[in-house]
Amino acid sequence: MAGMEGIFAPIATAFGDDERIDLARFQENIEKFNATSLEGLVILGSNGEFVLLSQDEKVSLVAEARKRLSPHKKVIAGTGCESLRETIELTKRCADAGASAVLIVSPSYYKSDMTFEALEKFFTAIADASPLPVMIYNMPRNTGINIPSSLTVKLAYHPNITGIKDSSGNITQIAEVVAKAPENFSVFAGSGSFLLATLMLGGVGGTLAVANVVPNYCVTIYNAWKAGEIEKARKLQLALLDLNAAVTSRFGIGGMKAAMDIAGFFGGSARFPILNASEGAKKEIRAIYEKTIAAYKAITGEEYLGIS
Amino acid sequence: MAGMEGIFAPIATAFGDDERIDLARFQENIEKFNATSLEGLVILGSNGEFVLLSQDEKVSLVAEARKRLSPHKKVIAGTGCESLRETIELTKRCADAGASAVLIVSPSYYKSDMTFEALEKFFTAIADASPLPVMIYNMPRNTGINIPSSLTVKLAYHPNITGIKDSSGNITQIAEVVAKAPENFSVFAGSGSFLLATLMLGGVGGTLAVANVVPNYCVTIYNAWKAGEIEKARKLQLALLDLNAAVTSRFGIGGMKAAMDIAGFFGGSARFPILNASEGAKKEIRAIYEKTIAAYKAITGEEYLGIS
Amino acid sequence: MAGMEGIFAPIATAFGDDERIDLARFQENIEKFNATSLEGLVILGSNGEFVLLSQDEKVSLVAEARKRLSPHKKVIAGTGCESLRETIELTKRCADAGASAVLIVSPSYYKSDMTFEALEKFFTAIADASPLPVMIYNMPRNTGINIPSSLTVKLAYHPNITGIKDSSGNITQIAEVVAKAPENFSVFAGSGSFLLATLMLGGVGGTLAVANVVPNYCVTIYNAWKAGEIEKARKLQLALLDLNAAVTSRFGIGGMKAAMDIAGFFGGSARFPILNASEGAKKEIRAIYEKTIAAYKAITGEEYLGIS
Amino acid sequence: MAGMEGIFAPIATAFGDDERIDLARFQENIEKFNATSLEGLVILGSNGEFVLLSQDEKVSLVAEARKRLSPHKKVIAGTGCESLRETIELTKRCADAGASAVLIVSPSYYKSDMTFEALEKFFTAIADASPLPVMIYNMPRNTGINIPSSLTVKLAYHPNITGIKDSSGNITQIAEVVAKAPENFSVFAGSGSFLLATLMLGGVGGTLAVANVVPNYCVTIYNAWKAGEIEKARKLQLALLDLNAAVTSRFGIGGMKAAMDIAGFFGGSARFPILNASEGAKKEIRAIYEKTIAAYKAITGEEYLGIS
Repeated sequence: MAGMEGIFAPIATAFGDDERIDLARFQENIEKFNATSLEGLVILGSNGEFVLLSQDEKVSLVAEARKRLSPHKKVIAGTGCESLRETIELTKRCADAGASAVLIVSPSYYKSDMTFEALEKFFTAIADASPLPVMIYNMPRNTGINIPSSLTVKLAYHPNITGIKDSSGNITQIAEVVAKAPENFSVFAGSGSFLLATLMLGGVGGTLAVANVVPNYCVTIYNAWKAGEIEKARKLQLALLDLNAAVTSRFGIGGMKAAMDIAGFFGGSARFPILNASEGAKKEIRAIYEKTIAAYKAITGEEYLGIS
Repeated sequence: MAGMEGIFAPIATAFGDDERIDLARFQENIEKFNATSLEGLVILGSNGEFVLLSQDEKVSLVAEARKRLSPHKKVIAGTGCESLRETIELTKRCADAGASAVLIVSPSYYKSDMTFEALEKFFTAIADASPLPVMIYNMPRNTGINIPSSLTVKLAYHPNITGIKDSSGNITQIAEVVAKAPENFSVFAGSGSFLLATLMLGGVGGTLAVANVVPNYCVTIYNAWKAGEIEKARKLQLALLDLNAAVTSRFGIGGMKAAMDIAGFFGGSARFPILNASEGAKKEIRAIYEKTIAAYKAITGEEYLGIS
Repeated sequence: MAGMEGIFAPIATAFGDDERIDLARFQENIEKFNATSLEGLVILGSNGEFVLLSQDEKVSLVAEARKRLSPHKKVIAGTGCESLRETIELTKRCADAGASAVLIVSPSYYKSDMTFEALEKFFTAIADASPLPVMIYNMPRNTGINIPSSLTVKLAYHPNITGIKDSSGNITQIAEVVAKAPENFSVFAGSGSFLLATLMLGGVGGTLAVANVVPNYCVTIYNAWKAGEIEKARKLQLALLDLNAAVTSRFGIGGMKAAMDIAGFFGGSARFPILNASEGAKKEIRAIYEKTIAAYKAITGEEYLGIS
Repeated sequence: MAGMEGIFAPIATAFGDDERIDLARFQENIEKFNATSLEGLVILGSNGEFVLLSQDEKVSLVAEARKRLSPHKKVIAGTGCESLRETIELTKRCADAGASAVLIVSPSYYKSDMTFEALEKFFTAIADASPLPVMIYNMPRNTGINIPSSLTVKLAYHPNITGIKDSSGNITQIAEVVAKAPENFSVFAGSGSFLLATLMLGGVGGTLAVANVVPNYCVTIYNAWKAGEIEKARKLQLALLDLNAAVTSRFGIGGMKAAMDIAGFFGGSARFPILNASEGAKKEIRAIYEKTIAAYKAITGEEYLGIS
């Protein structure tokens, strides 16, 4: 399997008001993503509320996504757990369920035990055991642990570790990985605010919460960059910052789900203790969404192709 | 159920070399704890590697502990999970398995979503649903989240929230809770290094990793304090600092398990990605252990009553 | 010179509305402190806004304080600067101005350069050169640097390093220093919220922002502890928490100065960029102050001896 | 005065072995910088050890630099101090000494007092009083304070605040400032590791520690970017990462000075408590330097024009 590239959405998990998975809504979202230019989906990412799901729920979502998603789009499954044994077991189950690759977050509860050595052994053991290619998932904002570039580079030489999603926003670190990892190691931006900077330095894609809301906008940045339309890419990147912040740092998953509702996807409720966006937040998100779409038109001269 | 008090050990989970639970060894440890002066045990605490256990494993350990432990000793079960629904379900299962109370750690993955409001709702909903009294578990070193005293005090007025284990080491915060919570709210030190300071300010107990290694030493501090033998308590407290650090901040769970082996309990291996203590660490831990026991004798004039 | 002990106030610097030092007001405050039971004063501490003063202003304040303060009360001068050379020079000038000891904060701008080795060399070089005994000042909240107990203990064996003011609030660290430093090394609490815990573990004093506001209250805690009146000390400690927080973490130096005005001292304005307390904050501080004084009476059965 | 742009070196201060300023060596360095393609120099930046200099020393260095530096190269003076009054006074003195602009770091000692409001008032008051254009200096690694993009953008509308040097490495924040500040507001990268990413998003220059060592390398990146030679710029950027880390995060100012000695400038000793680079560090820095120069040749096909 060659290195991944392109834009992925780490999709939300659709819940009903009773906090149970609403499979019908989940399927509808997948169909809508089929109509976008995304390269694929990440199931069970942070935005998929994976730590709030049971292992069985996780596997069923991967299976369902694979079944509904266009065959030429990829499914990456987030299978990292706190223990190695559980991670390997879930990885195998998600492989059976049809995933193309797995995204493995660092264990995070025992922070001070997660030394360079422990993390190296953890990712290596998974890569050894996994039937699927492994992407490292660096998410310090949630885990409280940063995977340093020196470790990523070391792991990048494992034949079954094929990339990293770096959500740290540390562009120096991202550049260091690009500079020192093998050439076909896929470096992905983990948030829409530093997508273009990542691509510019040699990254090849992004897995972006905001791609749950404006997938084709994100793909347009990527395509503009690939086509050498740098000024267009830059302007689109700058005009995406507010919406990206709204669905990540400012309003969290509740905000992202509200924005999905606004954009024509099903967002719905989060699982508790994640709180839903307040009415005030929703109003603000709507205004930001509309401003973003208007900027898209102004920059590209084209209508934005959302979900109808 | 009146407020808890006294010294508890948050016991280790016994694993075999294959990382599976070694129930026989776990039972042996319980029998050894029966011979100590501990008030009870916490099953599924941080030192019990709870995040590395499946829900079924967790329930079975609680049931087993309750079965083996002397009836007059209490079993507190750590049942906090990332989601509310899973926490409530596990709480009910552990109640059925015989626990006396539950210890609920704050959810930690979605740090920026864990606002005052979200945490208040989380603990309140659990307390409403739990058939057992709830102790709050504040463990910022692992969770990356601190439960401020203002929230603890607010929660302390819930009739089913009866105490807190505060592992922050923030003695100001601990004092604030003592000062403002209802009088029968039980404030426990979460680590052996600030046990006496906590008691001195009005705390009533401790749940201490180091009590897995030297339970009766910890109880002697507590008893000396209760008896007004302040200078004895103080000297014992100071002489415990190195061993306490060795089994917590310095060498982690692997170090604690090594110290248990040294002290006559079964420590054994940790579950991966927790690494076992190195030979060098073990040697250092042994020296610290022996120095601690010698200090005990020098301070109290008595032999230390360990596990024979 | 024997080890220091007792309660000190790190006094505020009196400024006029033009931000220049108001020496008359400063002198008045000193006279008022003469009427208290404080052991002495710290001039040029964090609460003295020392980083906002020129070197000449610093020396003049020390000289003035020494001239006005009762001869049996001590003057400690805060002479730490970013560079060694400037620190030594200021230390010598303050010695000439009559200080009894100096309090040396760690340099803080080049945080990543302030290794164990650099800090050890820094404090050692000062102690070698200083004509006065040196107290280490650990103030991580302002410096972003913590002086670990291992370093403090090593420095404590220098004949001219006689104590530490630890404002970290890390009671484990404070206990470690007490346990391992030479017996006559003076460990001082750096804030009123953990004064009693520090004394209880073997500390011998405190340098407390809140002693600018209620000096005799703080001394009463100290005396009660010395006299073995533990429950009285404990109750006074708990009842001081709110006022202590108000003049430190909650409302900063502006809040402390407002509280001084309320208590009968001259607080006045801070130097910019420190902002003065808002009217809302002042109102809240007044209520906390009055509640604190009322608690004092209820606990001790005596009138509080403030400034008339 | 129009917005600044281009590459600046925040030059080191030359000290003799007695830690006194070695003016002859400082002058020699200036002459060498005259022979580079740098746009100008920053005197009294973090790498100039400004917090270790007296105010008189600071002014004399600015005057000397202005006297020696080619008239078409700019001198920016770092005049931020902890107090507003001292900052304004130093700013005026440096204006008289011939500086073209001032770079103002946020005050940092009273971290919790440095609210949005306090910082806004601080920078505004300086800009109101300063005879020279003001650049904001965001340096969280040293100050412990981040100036958020919302504040920078607000300040950017002040007619005398003309730019920012952002050393945070937070590329999202940098992008937000570019997106929302007035068009002629100059956004500079504060470190060589994210120079290209900053330019790429709309920044116009850099003030780079590594430009003390390889000034023309840094200018080549800038020029390549300006010329649309993106792949060349990218490769040069990636190949600069190790040297940049060596003279900043890894080996600090001591490392930067050692690298200057290697590259033909005068580096010499730092002022204490900054430690000089160890022999081992120097050896490693030399290897990295040589690798960097070799990479330059490989990428550009030209000899690197250093200092002969």
